[in-house]
This record gives sequence, structure tokens and C-alpha cells, in this order.
Amino acid sequence: MDRLPRVAAHRLSLYLRALAGWADDGGRVSSGRIAAACGVTDAQVRRDLAALGNLGQRGAGYDARELAAAIRAALGIDRRWRAVLVGVGNLARALLRYRGFRAQGFEIVGLFDADPGKVGQRVEGLAVEPADRLGPRAAELGAEIAVLAVPAEAAQGAADVLAAAGVRGVLNFAPVLLKLPPRVKLVTVDLAIQLEQLAFLIQHGDPDPDGG
Amino acid sequence: MDRLPRVAAHRLSLYLRALAGWADDGGRVSSGRIAAACGVTDAQVRRDLAALGNLGQRGAGYDARELAAAIRAALGIDRRWRAVLVGVGNLARALLRYRGFRAQGFEIVGLFDADPGKVGQRVEGLAVEPADRLGPRAAELGAEIAVLAVPAEAAQGAADVLAAAGVRGVLNFAPVLLKLPPRVKLVTVDLAIQLEQLAFLIQHGDPDPDGG
Repeated sequence: MDRLPRVAAHRLSLYLRALAGWADDGGRVSSGRIAAACGVTDAQVRRDLAALGNLGQRGAGYDARELAAAIRAALGIDRRWRAVLVGVGNLARALLRYRGFRAQGFEIVGLFDADPGKVGQRVEGLAVEPADRLGPRAAELGAEIAVLAVPAEAAQGAADVLAAAGVRGVLNFAPVLLKLPPRVKLVTVDLAIQLEQLAFLIQHGDPDPDGG
Repeated sequence: MDRLPRVAAHRLSLYLRALAGWADDGGRVSSGRIAAACGVTDAQVRRDLAALGNLGQRGAGYDARELAAAIRAALGIDRRWRAVLVGVGNLARALLRYRGFRAQGFEIVGLFDADPGKVGQRVEGLAVEPADRLGPRAAELGAEIAVLAVPAEAAQGAADVLAAAGVRGVLNFAPVLLKLPPRVKLVTVDLAIQLEQLAFLIQHGDPDPDGG
């Protein structure tokens, strides 16, 4: 499991989405059905799921519920993660309303903003706290993850504070390449990059549908 | 160029971000500097850039401006793309303010929403149009790309309308696996998947930093 590559982890997330849609069916599901729903090859699905351990029986498919649990364990979402959200603009408000976060075990436990006009406002049941209290409060709240929705110029400073406060992972929406110590993991969501990838696919097709 | 894999296209986007930060330096840039800024190996950078054609001279690095232009051409962003945005909630407002879109050649030319209370509102200089006019208006506006920021249950219907209207690519933020004809390219930004990837990295480290 420790050697599961990151691209495979991304496919596991997709399989989990497909399985969630069939949860009410109960019973068994074939690799072919997962493959068709996710746009990858049947062989790829079987390879990825084989890496999770002994789940399928030849010809009998997978127990859908057991498979979903195994994927959640492999991804590390068979537990809850406490997260702080830094920068309470439109994006943060959209993220707070996003049902998928809580469903996958991510709980936003603190909101922070540098704008004194926003401090004290209640958003989705949480009061916005001042950004200059981010470090001690992130530690007090037991936050392991931080979601950065601040302007580019504020991102590295916030990331440094969070790293010093013991946060283990940062989901960064600011369009900037952050530097973090190796013990703090980073996933950057650069929305312009997503559009660039789309432009690339339109121009060139998708020569490698399993590789992205 | 037609065989540039999608993961390499993602790295090219990262290199372009790094180059943008050094644009004022002018002059030449080494593969090693790009590699360090983007967290990939020097060898990987040289391999990726070699695929763009004859750009570097042994020992002399790359001309930063020429390199950025070559990357933009490879990604298909050496031109403008007209896009419509469907679903005018918090996420859409955040996207409209996101400077990176226009900087990379993406221009939002139309806004659509199913809520009659939002129709006619002006957001960032554009009037919101009714969702039931999406098909004919997307065609009139010459939109090649659509950004879907609608609830999950509305996404497939909007995607079908857009595909029929001749849109060539969809950037989908709804947490649903869309089905589109092969000529319409799809990039899905599932924010919960990004958090799952972060949880995975925290639990397992990053065994394959160049693979994601």
C-alpha cells in the first residue's frame, strides 16, 4: 500500500465516486462496470484493486460495500480530518457549502481572515477569526489540514504559520507555488491549470487517458 | 507534440507558472532552476522540454521568453478561448474574479443560471441569462468552452445542451461523472478528490512525486 502511486490514488477516488452511485444496489460489482463509469480500462481497474489486497473472486466481481471500505482505507479517509479554512471570500463560502467535504470525512473547524470587517461574521455556523491568531488557534483546534483560499501574496506567509503550528497537509487554491517542509504535504488546485489542461485536450485529444 | 502525455501537460503548466515569476529577469533560465521551483527532477524537466523541439543549448539554458511561448503553444493557450459559465453561485463569483483565467487566455463571455431571481443580475460586468437559453446563446456567443458550476443534479442536463450547441470542452466542478460524446473534452475538478489526495499523501508520503 505504501507504494501506491499518486495517479493510482486519483483513480481510486474516481472508483469510489462510481461505487457511491451504486450503494443502494448492494451486492456485487464487476471491474468492467467500474471501468466504464470512470473511463479507464478494465485491466487498469483490476490492477489498481489487486493492489488493495484480496478483494475479488474470479468471475464473481467485488462486494461493493467491502470494496468501498478498502478504497477509503487506502486513501486514508476511513477517519475524520479536522481542517481550518484560511481566507473567507467567495471561494471559501462555496467550499463551506460543498457537501462532498463532510461526506468524505473532512470537517472545517475554524475560519480565518485578515480583513477586520469579516472577523466575527458567522459563515455556515462558524465565526470568522483573525488571521493573526491562525497559528495558535490551528494548534488548539487540532487541525491537521488547512485549506488556503487567500490571495497569492498572502499564501506563503499563511503556509509558514500553519507548518509551524503542526498542520500536516495544505490544500492550496492560491495561484502560487508554495514552499513547505517535506513533512507537510501539499496539493495545489490551480484553476487556470485545469483550464489549460482542457485546452490541451481540445487541441491534442487525450493520447493517454489513464495517465492523468 | 500530439503524443505529449497528459501528466507532462500538467508539468508544463507548472513550468509556465515558474517562468511567469521570473519574466522580469529576462535572459536565460536553467532546467535545474525550473526543476527546483516545481519540485520535479532536473532530468524530468529536460525530457519534457526536449519534447517541445530544439529550445535549449547545452550548458546555456533556455531563453525564458522563448520557452514560455513554446509551452503556451504546446498547451494550446497561445490563443484566446471564449467560455460560458453555467451556475452563478459563490463558486462562479470566485471564478469570475480569478485573474488567472483571463491571463491564460480564457474569457468568460456569458453567464447562465436557472434561478429567475438571478437572471438579469450583473456580475463582474456580465448580465446573468436564463439557463433555458443556454444552448442557442452558447452557439451565438461562439463559446468553445463551458465552465459548469451547477449542483450535481443539473450538471448532466447542462452538459448535454452544451455538447449539442457545439462546445468543445467542459470544465466541470459538479461532483458527478459526466458522460459526453468523445469530441467534447472534459476536465472534472472534484474538490473532495483533491482533499482525498491530500489525505493520501499525509498517510503514505509521496512515493511518486513526478507521477501526479
